[in-house]
Amino acid sequence: MREKVTVCEVGPRDGLQMAKTRMDTATKIAWITAMAEAGVPEIEVGSFVPPKLIPTMADTDEVTRAAVRLPGVLIVALAPNLRGAQNAYEAGAHRISVPVSVSEGHSRANLNRTPDEQIAEVAKMIAWVREQPRRMEVETACSTAFGCSIDGVVPTASVVRVAAALAAAGADMVTLADTVGYGHPAQIKEVVRAVQAEIGSKLDGLHLHDTMGLGIANALAGLEVGVRNFDAALAGLGGCPFAPGASGNIVTEDLVFMLESMGFESGINLDALIACRRYLAEGLPNEARHGHVPQAGIPKTFRALAA
Amino acid sequence: MREKVTVCEVGPRDGLQMAKTRMDTATKIAWITAMAEAGVPEIEVGSFVPPKLIPTMADTDEVTRAAVRLPGVLIVALAPNLRGAQNAYEAGAHRISVPVSVSEGHSRANLNRTPDEQIAEVAKMIAWVREQPRRMEVETACSTAFGCSIDGVVPTASVVRVAAALAAAGADMVTLADTVGYGHPAQIKEVVRAVQAEIGSKLDGLHLHDTMGLGIANALAGLEVGVRNFDAALAGLGGCPFAPGASGNIVTEDLVFMLESMGFESGINLDALIACRRYLAEGLPNEARHGHVPQAGIPKTFRALAA
Repeated sequence: MREKVTVCEVGPRDGLQMAKTRMDTATKIAWITAMAEAGVPEIEVGSFVPPKLIPTMADTDEVTRAAVRLPGVLIVALAPNLRGAQNAYEAGAHRISVPVSVSEGHSRANLNRTPDEQIAEVAKMIAWVREQPRRMEVETACSTAFGCSIDGVVPTASVVRVAAALAAAGADMVTLADTVGYGHPAQIKEVVRAVQAEIGSKLDGLHLHDTMGLGIANALAGLEVGVRNFDAALAGLGGCPFAPGASGNIVTEDLVFMLESMGFESGINLDALIACRRYLAEGLPNEARHGHVPQAGIPKTFRALAA
Repeated sequence: MREKVTVCEVGPRDGLQMAKTRMDTATKIAWITAMAEAGVPEIEVGSFVPPKLIPTMADTDEVTRAAVRLPGVLIVALAPNLRGAQNAYEAGAHRISVPVSVSEGHSRANLNRTPDEQIAEVAKMIAWVREQPRRMEVETACSTAFGCSIDGVVPTASVVRVAAALAAAGADMVTLADTVGYGHPAQIKEVVRAVQAEIGSKLDGLHLHDTMGLGIANALAGLEVGVRNFDAALAGLGGCPFAPGASGNIVTEDLVFMLESMGFESGINLDALIACRRYLAEGLPNEARHGHVPQAGIPKTFRALAA
């Protein structure tokens, strides 16, 4: 029996929101369908935000309604506020992901609120969600947990404070996001351990960017302190509109290659996952597609290890 | 006091041997000089092989003679056989690095010898070196220690056998090379620990390629089992002529960023190191230059950490 690790594909949300061109809705749904068929267990499909703010997310309602009909995949949607949570619920999302910046500067730029104001919003969202007849999970993501392009260093104590407040507010799970990709492996371990000491297994995932080339090493560091849930984006798409210099998410293909090589079970068929890149080539022809494994090809040693 | 880690820049050797164009000798020496001035403690400057075989290394004698006059930097040259060792010695190299493939297929393709024939050659080389009046270190590098593009999986026991034979032959140090970049972090730890159990601190370094995007994570894995010496190439140049699909070495800039961020002392000025990329832009304009830190810029959190 191999130990399980969950990869959440965030390309359709975090990968597309910064894209220079807009992927059409049909291609987006075909891409999400193909990833689900490749065995991706969780997919973050969009963001319930005003289309004026992020036009690439304007079809999130339609995409979510299609995605939740796919068998065997948990569909996540980002919701920054109560209105977003209500819309995600109506569309049938299985889980919402609510961003809460740890750093003041990013919080104001991204959400136009202080961290404490956003924590209060989360409490309102959770109260509303719990009153509904259908269960919808509420994940809260601590943005800028490993550094901020506006405020610089983010103290570990600040991350612990926000994570603890979110757990106390009743979030089903708390994740830590290296939104701008400034984190390093020793820091990942330090912050994860400090948050685990405060909220235990409610800390349930890492969201990592590869800005400095340390994204996969940071995932390894997370694995080594017990994290078993990682966000990643196909072809390393992504960025953050309020994080200058931030490059893409960690590459799903390379992450899955590492996890499976190390003996973890992701449930993902790596060949089928790589084949999903064709939707990016078709739907976002001008966007850079990152990833080493797709370029080099899956080595013969990988087959041997899997056998 | 920060713990020291040694980075050996192998760009002028491993980075250039596969380059589509040939860097002129003056640029090569200017590049090596600038890297030494940036604080790089060890530089592998070339390969004493017949120019017919690797034309880009034809000026290794001239480059080595210039490099050994630079203050405060240890100059390494690759030497695959006794003739190469003698030429390196004459040129004044401080250390030779002798490749010994663990896998039969790579050994025949790269050296036209079996692993055992090459181990016998190493013994002859060491005997000759020890008879000379000037001390020259002999490092032996176990190529394909983590997989082979020809033979596939390389058993850990085979790596241990070759490493033990090289230590017994009197090598000053043994390094493990992921020549084709097929290794993963758990494997790095397993093989390093197995070789350490056999030859102790004679295991003195890792040579990693980033073929599958795991190069920096593999360096982290090595750090965690006590490795304190890493090869890397500026801009991730490199490849292996007999390793189809092998991409470049791990990127020196990103590696140094990780090491310094984690609190290790490399002795390298990261700004000055990044500035060395201009020699690649000038001397190898058609070669891809990799590296995340140079592209994103050194984040403000790095300065804060260093302060």
